[in-house]
Amino acid sequence: MIIIKLGGSVISDKNTPYSFNREVVEEIAEEIAQFYPKESFILVHGGGSFGHPNAREYKIREGLIGDVKRKRIGFSKTHQAMLKLNNLIIEVFLEKGLPAYSVSSSSIFLIENGEIIYGELEILRKLLEKGFIPVLFGDTAVALEKGIDILSGDQIAGYLAKILRAEKVIFLMDVDGIYDKNPREKGAKLITELTKEGIEHLLESSESAGIDVTGGIGNKLKKALEIAHYSDVYFINGKVKGNLTKVLQGENPGTVIKRW
Amino acid sequence: MIIIKLGGSVISDKNTPYSFNREVVEEIAEEIAQFYPKESFILVHGGGSFGHPNAREYKIREGLIGDVKRKRIGFSKTHQAMLKLNNLIIEVFLEKGLPAYSVSSSSIFLIENGEIIYGELEILRKLLEKGFIPVLFGDTAVALEKGIDILSGDQIAGYLAKILRAEKVIFLMDVDGIYDKNPREKGAKLITELTKEGIEHLLESSESAGIDVTGGIGNKLKKALEIAHYSDVYFINGKVKGNLTKVLQGENPGTVIKRW
Repeated sequence: MIIIKLGGSVISDKNTPYSFNREVVEEIAEEIAQFYPKESFILVHGGGSFGHPNAREYKIREGLIGDVKRKRIGFSKTHQAMLKLNNLIIEVFLEKGLPAYSVSSSSIFLIENGEIIYGELEILRKLLEKGFIPVLFGDTAVALEKGIDILSGDQIAGYLAKILRAEKVIFLMDVDGIYDKNPREKGAKLITELTKEGIEHLLESSESAGIDVTGGIGNKLKKALEIAHYSDVYFINGKVKGNLTKVLQGENPGTVIKRW
Repeated sequence: MIIIKLGGSVISDKNTPYSFNREVVEEIAEEIAQFYPKESFILVHGGGSFGHPNAREYKIREGLIGDVKRKRIGFSKTHQAMLKLNNLIIEVFLEKGLPAYSVSSSSIFLIENGEIIYGELEILRKLLEKGFIPVLFGDTAVALEKGIDILSGDQIAGYLAKILRAEKVIFLMDVDGIYDKNPREKGAKLITELTKEGIEHLLESSESAGIDVTGGIGNKLKKALEIAHYSDVYFINGKVKGNLTKVLQGENPGTVIKRW
């Protein structure tokens, strides 16, 4: 089983509210269709310009404090916005003949201190058995310590990889992979293969610099450290046609972390 | 905790695909708003003209047989159609200041032979604790014996009443309650209170006549027989303004079955 994490910045333009990169998603669906049903897949997508504006406006990450009435409303609105993005993705997959099936992350996960502490995966397992492609998404979630929180698609992908023992976890991003420094900086080099020590070194050097020099990718690398116990992890550019196909054929068009 | 089942024929016109009775739902939300948060609520709604046309077109009830590729696509399309109706209801509730929160039934229930055999309710319990009004809906569902099936809102309401020990379960319908024969027939009389024996008698007489003389209400009465072990059950006309308020104040504007 292969987990594909569709980054929010791949499927949506973060600067334009409620924008959807339909062509990119169509291309991704077409590439997956070449390998389904021989391979089984779970998709997890991010929030892009659907989830983030709501989550920010209502400060969901603060938890259920302050004006809790307004917070509850915002929590629900954020979930509904995510369902709208999810619906657009599901529709594209169905058009391409792929049996994508929406599973609401907030209906099956409980979190505490930003980590999933409970996940109900029985229905997910059954959907896979029956030949479906479950599609989950970064979402609002009930949080034990502060009432409500945001659960990222990266967290979900990591949790599922661990519990369901995914063969590969493929992160589709809007850059070509992991760089030795922020890819927007001059002279940044793509790292084609990363080891455990390599990731630890990257995280240390970015922390000692007081910034996330790799371009907001620190949390992804921390997640990769966990996932690589079970699965090969790929970071590739999801906007480049053919990249996903390459990974599914065993090639590496970005950065790979082989399971250790 | 009170469970309100919004019948598909109350919130939608079954003869007009994708029709939504916004005014009726607004009225229901306003009545609930008079009692929330003193009372806690779970809402379950039916499919109306969103769910049924898809479920019929793809013959979901047959299970995952025949053209299984098409069946899977239809299964997902039916779920997405239900999510659209659910979104319309959630939006109305949020506008009225009620923290309705969508929970995807198919993400938490497994069924077998038309009955729920497994339900993941931990997140539902937490949502109630945090002051939300969870909103579930009749949905597609993974079925152990035949792969896929339809799970009705009535089934969900009954299951939740039993496991969560609801105080009242209120079925909102487009007729005034339970009648002694099909309410469309001349001389049909509304039954204001039903006992266990009364329900059994109604079911027997309708079965001996070879038809459901009470107007398609047989399954609801069978469900009521189970629910009344735990909760008072009301069948009322959801299109009549003030009816829901009456039940929430302890009156009976339709048919009541007191828990035994």
